[in-house]
Parts: sequence; C-alpha cells; structure tokens
Amino acid sequence: MELKDSVKLRRDTRHFLCEDVPEEVLTKALDFAHMAPSVGLSEPWRFVVVESPELKLEIKKNFDQSREEAEKSLSSDQERLTLHKTLKLEAIETAPVGLAVFSAQPGDEYILGTSTKKETLNWSVACAIQNLWLSLTEDGYSLGWVSIIDYDWFQKLLDVPKEWLPLGYLCIGKPADNYDSQPMLQQKGWKNKSEKPTVLRR
Amino acid sequence: MELKDSVKLRRDTRHFLCEDVPEEVLTKALDFAHMAPSVGLSEPWRFVVVESPELKLEIKKNFDQSREEAEKSLSSDQERLTLHKTLKLEAIETAPVGLAVFSAQPGDEYILGTSTKKETLNWSVACAIQNLWLSLTEDGYSLGWVSIIDYDWFQKLLDVPKEWLPLGYLCIGKPADNYDSQPMLQQKGWKNKSEKPTVLRR
Repeated sequence: MELKDSVKLRRDTRHFLCEDVPEEVLTKALDFAHMAPSVGLSEPWRFVVVESPELKLEIKKNFDQSREEAEKSLSSDQERLTLHKTLKLEAIETAPVGLAVFSAQPGDEYILGTSTKKETLNWSVACAIQNLWLSLTEDGYSLGWVSIIDYDWFQKLLDVPKEWLPLGYLCIGKPADNYDSQPMLQQKGWKNKSEKPTVLRR
Repeated sequence: MELKDSVKLRRDTRHFLCEDVPEEVLTKALDFAHMAPSVGLSEPWRFVVVESPELKLEIKKNFDQSREEAEKSLSSDQERLTLHKTLKLEAIETAPVGLAVFSAQPGDEYILGTSTKKETLNWSVACAIQNLWLSLTEDGYSLGWVSIIDYDWFQKLLDVPKEWLPLGYLCIGKPADNYDSQPMLQQKGWKNKSEKPTVLRR
C-alpha cells in the first residue's frame, strides 16, 4: 500500500470482528515497529502479547475502574458526562490480540541523546507504535490504544522487568467499523478533528 | 512510495546538502503529521519553523553546552568518549529547515484518555513526528531529531505559549549521506541495531 493511503486510512479502532489475526500479520507489524527511529539507537521498545483470558479480564476491570475515576472530573457537565459514558473506549476482552507495549529504561547506562530528557526513550517507543499501526492498516487490520489504566499496577500484573515502563495496551484485530472514514470520537460527536496543524515561524 | 520502503529507507540524518526544501514538501510532511493518532483526538502537536540564523546560532550554542555536559558522564571510558566526540549529532546551522516540535498541555481541560498518564499527549506528538519523517523520506528528504538541548530554555527562546512542551528540534533537508543504508551510529561503530524486537507472551 502507498504510504499516503496507510496514513490516511489508519484509525483508532474500538470495534473488531472475531476473525483471528494471522501470525504473519503480527510479526510483520512488530518488524515494522523495530525499524522505527530510536534515541541513541536504544531500541527501547518491548512487547508483550497477552493471550491469557484471565489477564485480559484483570486489565478490563482495571480499565473500568480508571474510567469511572476519570468520569468523576466530568460530573459538573452532565451532558458531556452522558456522552462520555456512551463511548466505546476499549475492546480488551473482544479484540483477537492484546499487545502491551513498554519502554525499557537504561538505569545507569549512557544512552546518547537522553542526557537532558529521559522521556525521549518513550517517544521512540511511540514512533514504533505508529509504524506498527501503519503496517496493520496496510494489511486490513487496526488497533485501539488503551491508555486509561493504572500504569504501575499494569507493569506488575504482566510480570515484566521493573525497568520496563508501560505505554499502554493495544487491542488489535480486523475492524468491524470504519466510523464513516473519520475518527470515532468525531463520528460520535465528542470532538472534531481540526483542518490544519498549528505552525508558527520564528 | 510503498509504506514498507518509506519505513525501511527512513534514516536519522545529520549530513545534508545545501539544496532548499520546497515549501510543498514541508507542507505535505506537516499534513501527514496532522493525520497521526492522538489521545482523545487532542491533536497536541505544535510546530515552529525556525528561520532566523540568530536563533539557530543560539540553539547550536545550547546544544554544544548540553553535549559537553553529557560527555562528562563518559569520562571514565576514554575510548568511548573519544568515539563520542567524533560523532556528528546535529546540523542546526547547516540544514535548510529547522523545525521545533511541541506538545500543547491542556491545563484543566478534560482530555479523554489522559486521566492516568498526562505523558500520553507527548506520545501522540511522537507519532506525528514519525508520520512527518516517513513523508519526508518518500519525497527524498530526511531529518535529524536533535534531543540534547535544555528544554526549558528552548521553550523560552522560541517565545511560544508556556503550555507548549518541547519534544526537540528537527533538522530537515536532502541527505548528503545514507550511511551505507544503516543507522549512522552503527556505521560509526557506536552501537549495532539488533535483529529482532523483544516479544514476550503472557
């Protein structure tokens, strides 16, 4: 697929078909992720394919709690809160593949380019996720990036090295909906995408 | 260009030709950036095209200081320090285009998906940078992401709203070197790229 088509067709997907994700589709997506840029060639991305239904249930329960907590801050705006409650924000138990993504922190090791901002490592992992997303889009699959979780708890639940910081949980599968070719949050009336990015000159 | 080619050909570039970057190439790259995913459809990316030679000189001086500071932590490994000093890590004054990238923080505004981690906004901006990078690659251009700067100082220097957090300074232009089709840091003997990403199963 042409780059421009994968960039344009990529959607944050929360509705999936039951259809399995072929192993080669996931492997290719992970290989694309691995070709992302990384600060100091640190390649800090780490992936955990979550297969256990018990773990998925735990993640879903934590998500539900975190979402409920988030909704408290909307209590003064009943209209917004009501709309918020109708939004489907995850597919943790229904998406065929769950992929947890982490950023490995180097401890005392010198990583070129990180001396004034350690967070640069996490930005490299985000670039890798974007590559993975474009690869899935090219193959007719998609993902939904679930970010409302208790990050410390999530790290412990999946029993990964303590220097792996979570960036979220990706629900992956074949889309059941393309949201009329627009972001789901726009289709549902939550927020509209702007026409152009903000660009200043100095 | 096919997605896979743009992903494979993308390089972190520190050597540029003098050739100008056509306005339409930069506009397209910024449009691709604007099609990135963003948490809660926040579109937090903000861009500043830096044209002033005086500002570029200031950024270069700050980079040099930050680099010198970083090299102090390598003083116990003379071989590594010597190699580090030979690496070209920026092209602030020579790249035809300088692009500062920021992440707009929402203050008290409720942004869906950020309740348990505000940093998710910065990850959206990193995804936008990756899209921008792939667009430039498709058009025969590239960038070098300069991350060794004093971030607070940089924010003030460019006189942007105080809620814009910097993610770095991108040197953009036509590559003068493809580093033998590998990361420059690998070509120069600093670090080798690994074969495969780390993937666990749970």
